Amino acid sequence: MKRVAIVGAGMTVFKEHFDLGIKELVPMAVSEMASHVDKGLDRDDIQAAWFGELTTSDGFPSGILADSCGLLDIPVTRVENACATGNDAVRNATYAVGSGAVDVALVVGADKVRESSARSTFWEWASLTRDMAWDYPLGLVAPANFALHAARYLYESPATREHMAMVAVKNHKHALTNPKAQLRFEITIEQVLNAPMVVAPFGLYDCTPQSDGAAALLLVSEDVVDRYTDNPVWVRGVGLGMDRVMHQHKQDMTTFPPTVRAAKAAYAMAGITAADVDVAEVHDCFSAVELISYEDLGFAERFEAYKLVESGATTFGGSMPVNVSGGLKAKGHPPGATGVAQCVELFEQLRGDGNNQVDGARIGLAHNIGGPTAVAAVTILGNQKD
Amino acid sequence: MKRVAIVGAGMTVFKEHFDLGIKELVPMAVSEMASHVDKGLDRDDIQAAWFGELTTSDGFPSGILADSCGLLDIPVTRVENACATGNDAVRNATYAVGSGAVDVALVVGADKVRESSARSTFWEWASLTRDMAWDYPLGLVAPANFALHAARYLYESPATREHMAMVAVKNHKHALTNPKAQLRFEITIEQVLNAPMVVAPFGLYDCTPQSDGAAALLLVSEDVVDRYTDNPVWVRGVGLGMDRVMHQHKQDMTTFPPTVRAAKAAYAMAGITAADVDVAEVHDCFSAVELISYEDLGFAERFEAYKLVESGATTFGGSMPVNVSGGLKAKGHPPGATGVAQCVELFEQLRGDGNNQVDGARIGLAHNIGGPTAVAAVTILGNQKD
Repeated sequence: MKRVAIVGAGMTVFKEHFDLGIKELVPMAVSEMASHVDKGLDRDDIQAAWFGELTTSDGFPSGILADSCGLLDIPVTRVENACATGNDAVRNATYAVGSGAVDVALVVGADKVRESSARSTFWEWASLTRDMAWDYPLGLVAPANFALHAARYLYESPATREHMAMVAVKNHKHALTNPKAQLRFEITIEQVLNAPMVVAPFGLYDCTPQSDGAAALLLVSEDVVDRYTDNPVWVRGVGLGMDRVMHQHKQDMTTFPPTVRAAKAAYAMAGITAADVDVAEVHDCFSAVELISYEDLGFAERFEAYKLVESGATTFGGSMPVNVSGGLKAKGHPPGATGVAQCVELFEQLRGDGNNQVDGARIGLAHNIGGPTAVAAVTILGNQKD
Repeated sequence: MKRVAIVGAGMTVFKEHFDLGIKELVPMAVSEMASHVDKGLDRDDIQAAWFGELTTSDGFPSGILADSCGLLDIPVTRVENACATGNDAVRNATYAVGSGAVDVALVVGADKVRESSARSTFWEWASLTRDMAWDYPLGLVAPANFALHAARYLYESPATREHMAMVAVKNHKHALTNPKAQLRFEITIEQVLNAPMVVAPFGLYDCTPQSDGAAALLLVSEDVVDRYTDNPVWVRGVGLGMDRVMHQHKQDMTTFPPTVRAAKAAYAMAGITAADVDVAEVHDCFSAVELISYEDLGFAERFEAYKLVESGATTFGGSMPVNVSGGLKAKGHPPGATGVAQCVELFEQLRGDGNNQVDGARIGLAHNIGGPTAVAAVTILGNQKD
């Protein structure tokens, strides 16, 4: 497989873009990406595109990307994999470039969750990231199904709601300096603990906001990387993992097997271990999910995730900074865009110009867990080829 | 890029499976595929899967494939590209195997269009293969938007409604011997012309039925092909093409530019021309679409497609047999499954045991055009590696 590099990255602000639809957000992200390619990008260079999109309400996703960006002469594939959509789009583009069939590939992630110009289909589409025979009709929408995991995790591990709150406080603090973030204000442990309950054990501040936005990456083959930059970021590993869809079939609610599987594949491809990761964007759709994911990704021993957040290790300035962008929690979470936007953050970190720049960061990891905790994606990036 | 072969293929009957959902149809197709692998398939051999699925109503597509087939240890990507979904799933799996990242890949296409156990979302989802600001709200569902093309084509070319009817009559006749086909009865030109009008110029018999079904393929790298069969079918070329989504933006209604682009890419990759194709499965969602596609695929000169059907050239026994399976028109059309099922037919044809077997068929072509005529996919298969 040819080696694959990222040579450009850009994204819109994540927020409630009531005045914009997918047709506006996608070209905004692509334009910013193109403007960040060091040696410039000619639109005709782009040979194929992958579009991570989950909740469209504006129409045919692949066509909207081609149409709104003036890219009618290239193929566009829409990838959908619940909240792992963005990083799975990166994975599929990596294979195409890695095969040699495509030298220059565009990856876009976008979602329009808040009311759109056409109509809002978010909850309809969200239902289709669940099981429709049992889980969804019984009320297991995203907060509810993750809450089942969090409640059991709190019961079995020494972690408390205070540790969950520390995750939220940390990620809000990180977002303060991120101009792309949706929730740029600090919160306190007390505010998190005293917030209105959404579904126990998640109060309002344990939950990601609903967001609109788009993000874009340019992936190129090692054969042509020099045309675009002298400072590429390399795709070192990609992984995707699955699990049973229905919660009644899950054997252990305190871990997410898809993350374990995705991380194993990505670490193996990259030839590294968790200890080699310098900076990570971890799926914190709900505060406890970041804690559980520390363990599934190998950052912490089982049931010891609380130590990382309690010690400040995962805060900016700590030994293993997580979500220095603000994470889904404070930067925002337009599902199809999220994974791609994580890679945008890591691209900047690994080139030394990130928000809350981590000194000497060489290896970055992006992680999503999606839907009924039945899919996860891990992407590992590095500023060295090997 | 490593060369990629198909070593197993299977599908369910296409029909109104009122008693079955996606969770049943997918494993049925995968089981049949596995039983057709000459030297056998161990489930643990499968390293990754691609799932073409458009109108799901049973829940999270990727998870349903993993869950219903007991494939929880492998990654599953859902690809969606309107009615080009199936062949785009083949294309993405081809890149992954071609890259060397995966040696053995499963490709499944499935759709449940008729009432499901959970709820019917077909028309909701169909809307999202259109433009939601203009085309869909103005009534351009599939029959209506293709009818605009057909009406203009009849006006500009010598083709008549009789020629459209000949396509339907031909494909119904081909389906008679296909045990997987939905509409196994002959029709006459008169019946087609006198059938109730759906949307001019399409009468009832110019239109594909609504269908449920699934199809599966096993794609493997040239490195491991000998483990599975001595008679592989090679993926010679893949192509995907786009066009503007909204009909007001289309410059010529008598051709489908996505097909021209997809075919150009696939022919170039295969190193062949249209004249080399021995048997083709062409997207005949509406009778006139097969005619227009003859021209876009290079089987006929512009506005001369009528000659092929009038002369019997595209009938079984003719010089360029098209849709010997029965096509979408009579075999059926579960959108996500259709492209994969076309490749199932070609796999059998190129191994000499197809329905209406074409003598000495060496090169087969599968073609889909999807959504608002804004995307098309072409896959070229051959029983010789080069």
